[in-house]
Parts: sequence; structure tokens; C-alpha cells
Amino acid sequence: MRGFKTYFPILGWAGRYGRSELTSDLVAAVIVTIMLVPQSLAYAMLAGLPAEVGLYASIVPIVLYALFGTSRSLAVGPVAIIALMTATAIGGLGLAGAEAMAAALVLALLSGGILFAMGLLRLGFLANFLPHTVTAGFVTASALLIAAGQFGQILGISARGDTMPEIVAGIVGGIGEVNLYTLTIGLVAIVLLFWARARLKKRLLGLGLRPALADGLSKAAPILVVVLSTLAAWALDLSARGVALVGAVPGSLPPLTLPGLPAGVAQSLLLPALLIALVGFVESVSVGQTLAARRRERIDPDQELLGLGAANIGAAFTGGMPVTGGFSRSIVNHDAGAATPAAGILTAAGLLLATLMLTPALALLPKATLSATIIVAVIGLIDLSILRQSWDYSRRDFAAVALTIGATLLAGVEAGLLVGVGTAVALHLYASSRPHIAEVGFLPGTHHFRNLRRHGVVTDPSLLTVRVDESLYFANARYLEEYLSARLAEAPSLRHVVLMCTAVNDIDRSGMESLGMINHRLKDAGITLHLSEVKGPVMDKLRRSAFVAELSGEVFLSQVDALRALTPRAAPPELHAMAA
Amino acid sequence: MRGFKTYFPILGWAGRYGRSELTSDLVAAVIVTIMLVPQSLAYAMLAGLPAEVGLYASIVPIVLYALFGTSRSLAVGPVAIIALMTATAIGGLGLAGAEAMAAALVLALLSGGILFAMGLLRLGFLANFLPHTVTAGFVTASALLIAAGQFGQILGISARGDTMPEIVAGIVGGIGEVNLYTLTIGLVAIVLLFWARARLKKRLLGLGLRPALADGLSKAAPILVVVLSTLAAWALDLSARGVALVGAVPGSLPPLTLPGLPAGVAQSLLLPALLIALVGFVESVSVGQTLAARRRERIDPDQELLGLGAANIGAAFTGGMPVTGGFSRSIVNHDAGAATPAAGILTAAGLLLATLMLTPALALLPKATLSATIIVAVIGLIDLSILRQSWDYSRRDFAAVALTIGATLLAGVEAGLLVGVGTAVALHLYASSRPHIAEVGFLPGTHHFRNLRRHGVVTDPSLLTVRVDESLYFANARYLEEYLSARLAEAPSLRHVVLMCTAVNDIDRSGMESLGMINHRLKDAGITLHLSEVKGPVMDKLRRSAFVAELSGEVFLSQVDALRALTPRAAPPELHAMAA
Repeated sequence: MRGFKTYFPILGWAGRYGRSELTSDLVAAVIVTIMLVPQSLAYAMLAGLPAEVGLYASIVPIVLYALFGTSRSLAVGPVAIIALMTATAIGGLGLAGAEAMAAALVLALLSGGILFAMGLLRLGFLANFLPHTVTAGFVTASALLIAAGQFGQILGISARGDTMPEIVAGIVGGIGEVNLYTLTIGLVAIVLLFWARARLKKRLLGLGLRPALADGLSKAAPILVVVLSTLAAWALDLSARGVALVGAVPGSLPPLTLPGLPAGVAQSLLLPALLIALVGFVESVSVGQTLAARRRERIDPDQELLGLGAANIGAAFTGGMPVTGGFSRSIVNHDAGAATPAAGILTAAGLLLATLMLTPALALLPKATLSATIIVAVIGLIDLSILRQSWDYSRRDFAAVALTIGATLLAGVEAGLLVGVGTAVALHLYASSRPHIAEVGFLPGTHHFRNLRRHGVVTDPSLLTVRVDESLYFANARYLEEYLSARLAEAPSLRHVVLMCTAVNDIDRSGMESLGMINHRLKDAGITLHLSEVKGPVMDKLRRSAFVAELSGEVFLSQVDALRALTPRAAPPELHAMAA
Repeated sequence: MRGFKTYFPILGWAGRYGRSELTSDLVAAVIVTIMLVPQSLAYAMLAGLPAEVGLYASIVPIVLYALFGTSRSLAVGPVAIIALMTATAIGGLGLAGAEAMAAALVLALLSGGILFAMGLLRLGFLANFLPHTVTAGFVTASALLIAAGQFGQILGISARGDTMPEIVAGIVGGIGEVNLYTLTIGLVAIVLLFWARARLKKRLLGLGLRPALADGLSKAAPILVVVLSTLAAWALDLSARGVALVGAVPGSLPPLTLPGLPAGVAQSLLLPALLIALVGFVESVSVGQTLAARRRERIDPDQELLGLGAANIGAAFTGGMPVTGGFSRSIVNHDAGAATPAAGILTAAGLLLATLMLTPALALLPKATLSATIIVAVIGLIDLSILRQSWDYSRRDFAAVALTIGATLLAGVEAGLLVGVGTAVALHLYASSRPHIAEVGFLPGTHHFRNLRRHGVVTDPSLLTVRVDESLYFANARYLEEYLSARLAEAPSLRHVVLMCTAVNDIDRSGMESLGMINHRLKDAGITLHLSEVKGPVMDKLRRSAFVAELSGEVFLSQVDALRALTPRAAPPELHAMAA
């Protein structure tokens, strides 16, 4: 049984919480809050939802994660790729306005429920079935989709679409509607944000500022860009010149919401919710483990499922959207010195204040500024070198990456993920379906049996000894059948076949049935089948089946025994002298 | 390049064909023809098609298989399970009459095309992904569905349905319509057929008949039952008493047909056609290999794909239905002494004669007789002991069998196959996703490093050596990450981690990325990562990535080297004396 304390990690640190932890956490919270305001607004917009939803989704979920989660510095909230997946799922249903909002809540509830249930059932290992290669390709392709879509926004064209061809067609079709004011704001914002990220801190240090202040100021750059573009929109009356603004944002507490949709609609959100849950979990755990290792701490993936599940369920009931542990915000939180999950709770309080007080000013914020924020955030995720690297590494891995990227760009995020995982699984099974099979013989002067293609070993035409370098399971069982059936046809004087099982760690029932079939066919041809060097657990399994009783030959403890018994005259003399 | 002769195996035996082969083949052909007439009619009825379709499907396809196929005694034609899958596919579209017939032709064309294309691409290995356990469960469940459906026919109730609940509901709902004449004919036919199979030959031998004649007569029992029940139907005017008869069967040559359906309908037949192709291929190859082994011959699975593909394409253009190599007819063919594929061509001629001459008489044949033929044929396929056996063997195999049987009975043949294969693949991946990981130490007085849980080995608190007993690939890569992250948290004095790769046969890119992540995290915690005993091909792959350059520690050729370099003081003196 797992103890109460395991389910509520907060009980582990809250008792020891003191003044120094509070100071560290407060500083981290202020920095993260400043960074999160524009990011949260931007990702809500990316998901096709009202901007305030991003703020709401960063308040209660953070607190719930702090209660259940095991990472000390993970910051939970809307992230770019989950926002894109949310937009795709909602767009796929053709919903807009209040219905889109309802769908976002249902999506958060479903993926939260899936994560929480997986946590209770300790199914964290399921994330292992998203291969790194697929994740890498998926992240790159998703970031390309996001950047392209936001590039349209910066041009002043609303080019919505879930696939690259749709987005490009939208941009090309709307090229006549380009708004130069919007474009100017967007490009200036992008340049400023890139510059701030690459140079600002160094420049400030050069001006003689203290390192902490320089760091804080450079991290605050996004909010400065927000303030500057809002001022510009107000001073130049950009709204009248066709620049899209965020518009009225209610300055209220997160609303209590009850997620609800017609059953049919909710059902069609199940697969998207599952994919969002898995992608979110993989991203979050990867960030969490990286940060935990820096302090020689560890996170518990199954408990993380509970934390993320609770966060998403919380988002569903407080006007939010699907959330997960984000990379950039968590790094900032960690670097700013967050000592305990209390930093998250303080960040939530900061965001609550921001929501209540700053929102009137956001009405004048140009959407292009948020698009610029998104582009700068996701551009770092685009890494097409993965194609080249995986090509160099192996063709199989390249195929998985390339198909994932292609399917994501051409058919959207959901198809991309499914195609990627399907390809990776299929390629893996394919590889293990053709195991290395060696025909072995006795190597004179040694104790060893070796591959007869590589060594000058002693063999006998009446005896074939075969070593399979893989466990026998369904995908490779018939391969052995076919191998032996081919060998049989070309060896007329064959009397005995010995299967040397040194490298067989498991035989599943299909493998056993195949062995039975081989035994049966060899018997029909007047050849006896023997096994040698079978590992203990494998032998236990075989004994529970009818196979051993039906075996035409014997099970030899060692290959030496087999050789001595089956080819008494042909075997070299030293073999007879050897201990079994 | 494969030669012309490989693609047309007939060129290999036709030149050496002589009088003795002709005699053997003629005898076999007569026996198989007599057996095939009722069986072909019955399986067409099972597929929901006119009875003559079964005959047509046994003529041209047999000839085409003889041209392309590699088995000398395989007999191709309609078989029970493929007929059931055909019925399900057509029924799923809600088609009847001429449209159902058109769908059967399209299905034969599609599965023939799939098989032929797989043959050209040499994709025979794809059949490996139908595990024995799934096939066994699927055959048993399908036979149960067939027997239950035909039981309804014998009661005189037309209880059509693709799942057991539907069939049972149909029978229960129609229980008031039971026709006692139909029931009597059906039960008498079943009893006669079972008796003939179990006892007739022995009884005839007891009466002093020559063995060959006794054998021939007992194999002809089904056609005798057909004749007897037809006579009964004529003498007692059973049609007037509500007994369903086969009805007018055109006594013509197989018609030339052009398979055609609206594109949308044809498209929805693609998945069923693929499943029919795979199941048919697996059944056929399994029969073919069993028979070939008896004569120390072999069949070529990729060439078999061409043979079966051609047979199905032929069926599509001559009024047939999907076909494959059947177990019972092939055994009879083989036992009757078929020496070459010419026996098949002669059987086709026999069936052609039968189609032209016997069909008028078939009009009066009660359908219940055909149902009895089907029940007796499939009852031997029902083997629920597979549940018990697989339970004894391993829980994982039991789960695959039970889910296959359950899904087939409750949701039909297509769902059953897909669920079965999905379960088997998922369980296999699950098992290999949690490899055995041992922490090893130096065993004093030996050259060996052993698991420290089992042996009194020497270790050092600053060094952790870990041996993973499995190739590293995506499904188990994160397992190692989590394992090390847990160990790291509980070993404060750790300085070095060595990954001993003796059992690692492959590292895919996900595995390599995971190693990179581990290296990165350990470095953050001030610990160096080393590798030892990496196999040549694996090292080649790693070198093509950035991993080796970024590795914080070294790659040691042997574990002894690693120990000497990393714990110079703590290592036992004999280690220093040892050669690397």
C-alpha cells in the first residue's frame, strides 16, 4: 500500500517551510508571473480561445499541481503544443464561440481524468510508447505549424488551418489583405524579443547593472513589449487602422465552470484528449526529470500523473484549458531559485492579481504582439537537423521521424502522432521478426560452440545445430519455421536438429506452438528435434505445455551433452573427455 | 534477380510429367471432386451467395494456383472461415442479391490484388504478425459463430447475424417457426456425416472391402448424404412442407464477370479484403508447409502469395468468391496421392463436369443438408481448451486468446482479429519495456562481474555499474532513465555510473537520446557516465551521433578497464594484475 503522504507530497515539505524558502519562492514567483502574463494570453489565443482563458488556466491548476506533484520547480499552465492540439481538436468539431469554450473545458476534464486514472492505476510507463524520435519529429512539425499560423496573424490575415497546406493556402489567398500596421508591430515585436533574449542581459551588465537585476529585466522583456505595443495602439489609434486588438478582457476571478457538451461531441473529443494527455505527460515528465537531476532529487512519474490530472481537472472547472508542465516557464522558475512548490502557489497569487488589475489595459493590446511572443517561443523548438541526424544514425529511425513530420504537417497533429507511433512500433517489430540465426559447430580445442560461417568448427551431416539470438515470440516464430523448412529441403542426410537456446530469454505461446509445428513437421520427415541449454524460466513454461511430452527428441542440459548423445562416432575425442 | 522459372513453378515439373504421375493425379482428382461438390455449395451458402458460386470459385482459381503456387498438394477454393468473413463484409454493407454478388467479386479482386502485390514486394513476413494465439482463438470463435448460424438454418430459422448475441437472439426470436422436416433432415445428415467420418471406413473394411475402396467410399459419404436428402425432398415433396431447398442452379460454365461497385462501397471493402487476404494466407501457408514437410519439400511463402493472389483474381473474373488453400481438401488431395499440381487441374475439370451435369439435380437439395455439412466441417475447428492451455502457459498469452475469442464472438470477425493482434503487440511491447536491470560488482577470485543481489561481489560507494539485459529501444529507454534517477536520489556519494553493455544488441535513436539525457542529467548532478563492453555494431551507430562526443566519461573496452580507471584504490589487487 502506498501511504497517504505519497499521494500528497505537500505533506513532505510544508512542515519544514521557513523564512529562507519563502524569500526564494517569492522572488521566483514574481519573475515567473511577469513572464507568464503575455505567454498565457498568447497560448489561449493559439488555442482559438478568449485571451483571459490562458490566465485562468494558470491559477488553480498551479495550486493543484503544487498539492499533488513531485517536482519542486515544475510550472504548470498552457503550453504551445498542447494549445495547438486543443485548437485542432476543437476546430475538428467545427465549434466556435461559447461552444469552443465548452469544448476546451471538456477537453481539459477528459485529459485530466485520463491522467488521474493513469496515475491511480500506475500506468506512467505508457509514456514509453511515445518514442523520442516521434516526439522530436512531432514537436518540430507542430512548431512549424504554429509559427506558420502566427505568421499569418502578423500579416493581418486570419489563416486558420490544422495542416500546412491549409495554412499556406490561407496566407496566399489573403495576401491582398495584408495590414501594414499589424505587420510592423509584429516584426518589431519579434526583433525586440529576439534581441532581448540574445543580447539584453549582456548589454545591461555592460552598463554596470547588478547581475540579478540585469537577469530580471531581460526576463521582463516580453511584458515590456506588451506594454510598448499597447501604448502604440492607444497613441496611434491602431484599432481604427484595422489592427486586431485583444479586446475587452473581464477582470474577474477565474469563473466556476461546469464542463458540459452533448454526449456525441464529448465522445469525439476522447481520442484528442488521450493524445493531449500523453503528449502533455511526456513533455512535463521530461522537464521535471531534467530539473530534478540538477538537485539530485527525483520525481515519481506515476505521482506526476496525479498532479497533472488534478491540474487539468481544476482547469476544467475554473474556465481554463488543457495544461501541462511547460519547459520555458519551469526553467525560469528553477533558475529564479524556486525552492518548493510554494513558488507555484505564489505565482498563482501573482497571476490572480494580474488578472484582477491589469486586464483593462489588455483590451488595447495588438494580437500581433502575442503572435510575435508565440513565434519567438516556438522557433527554438524547430529542429530539422533531427532528419539528418536520424538518417546518419539508422534508416529505421529516419523513417519514423520523417513520417511523423510529414504526417503532422500534411494531416495535422493527431494524425501525425498516430502515424509516428504506428511506424515506430511496426519498424521495431519488423526488426525483431528477423532474428540472427547461426548454425553452430564444436570449435576444437575449446569448450565452445561457434557460428560455422565464421570459425573452423566440426560438424556432422546428420546433425544440424541452430542458435537463435533472440527470444522466440509471435513475430519471429514463423521465421524459424521457414528457416528450418528451407534448410531441411537442402540437407537430405539430416537426422537430428538441435535448437541451442542460450540466447532465448523467453518463448511465448506462439513461439511454443511454432516449435510444436517444427517438431511435428520434422517428425513427418523422419528427423528428431532436440533442445539444448534452455534457461530455467523458459523450461518451466515449456513444461506447462504439451510440447515437451510431444518432442520427438530430448532436452539436453548442455550442447556438449547433445553432441555426445547424437553423434557418438563423429564427435571429436576431446568432447568425450569434457565434463558436461 | 529472380528467374522466370521462380515465378512459374509449373515450368519446374511440367516437363518431367509422365504416366505414373498422371495416374496418381487422376485418382486424387476424382476423390477430391466428389468431396468438393457439397463443400463448395455449402460455403457459398455460408457466405450468403448463390450455391453455384462455390463451384465456380473452385474451378479457375485451382488452375491459376497450379500455375503459380509452390505446394504440390494444396487445394484452393472456398473455405469456411473465409466464407464467414465474406458474409460479414458483405452484410456490413447491407447488400443482398445481385449487389451482394458484385461485392463478393470485388472482395475477391481486392484480396487477390493485395496478395499478389505482397508477393511481388516479398512481404510474406507480414503473416508473422498474426500470432498463433490470436489465430487459434479466432478460428475457434469463428467456428462457433458458423456452427451457431447453421444451427439456426437446421431449425428452419433464418437467423443471420455477425455476432453471437445477434445469432442467438435470431434463433430465440424465431423459435416458434421451427420446421420439423428441416430439423429432421439436418439432424439425420449430421448424424450420418459424423458416423461416416468416425466409423464408416472401419465398418467397410470389416465387410471385407479393399482398403482403397473403403477409403474412397467413406470420403464419398457427404455426396451420398446429398443424394439421399435430395431424393427425400423429391419423394416427400418437402418444398411444399416449408423446407428450404437450394433451388434452380444454372448448369453453365463459370461466367465471365467484371467486378465493379461504386468507389465508396469498394473502399469500405478494403479493410475486410486485407483481413481476408492475411487470414487466407496464414491458413494456406500453414497447410502447405505441413504437407510439404511430409515429403521433405518446401514451399516459398512469397511465391504462395502470388499463387493465392492469382487464384483470387481469377475467382473475381469468373463468378467466384474469395478463396484460399483449405485444410481438409488439401489433406484429402495429399492422402489420395496427388503427385503434382496437375491433380488440381484435373479436379477443376471434374468440378466443371459436375457443374455442367449435376446442377439440375441440386435444385431439390435441402439447404439443411448443406448446413449439416458445414457444421460437421467446422466442429473440429472449435477448441476451447486453448483457453486453459494458454492460461497454464502464461497470463499474457491467455489475455491475447481470451480477448480474441471474446471480441470475435461479441463484435464479429473483423473486430476480433484487430483486437487480437492489437492485444498481442501491446503485451509484447509491455514485456520488453521493463527489461531486467542488474547492478553488478567484481566477483573476487574470478574474471567475472556479477549481479550484486546474488553474489558476494566487491563494490565501491562512488561507483555504480549497471547491466541492462535487453537492447535499448524506445519502449524501454525511459525505464532506464527512471531507474537511474531513482538510484541517484538514494546514493549521495556516487561519482561514476558505468553502463555495462554486454547484453545490448541494438540501441535505437530513442535509446541513444535517452542515454544522452541520462548523461546530461548525471553531469548536472556532478556524476560522470561511462560505457563498457559495447558491441561493435552498436558502437558504430553511437559514433555516428553526437552522443560519444558529449559523453561526460569514457567508453571502456572492458569492465575491468573501467574498474581500474575509476576506482584505483578500492579495486581488489587481483584486478590490477589482470589483463584487460
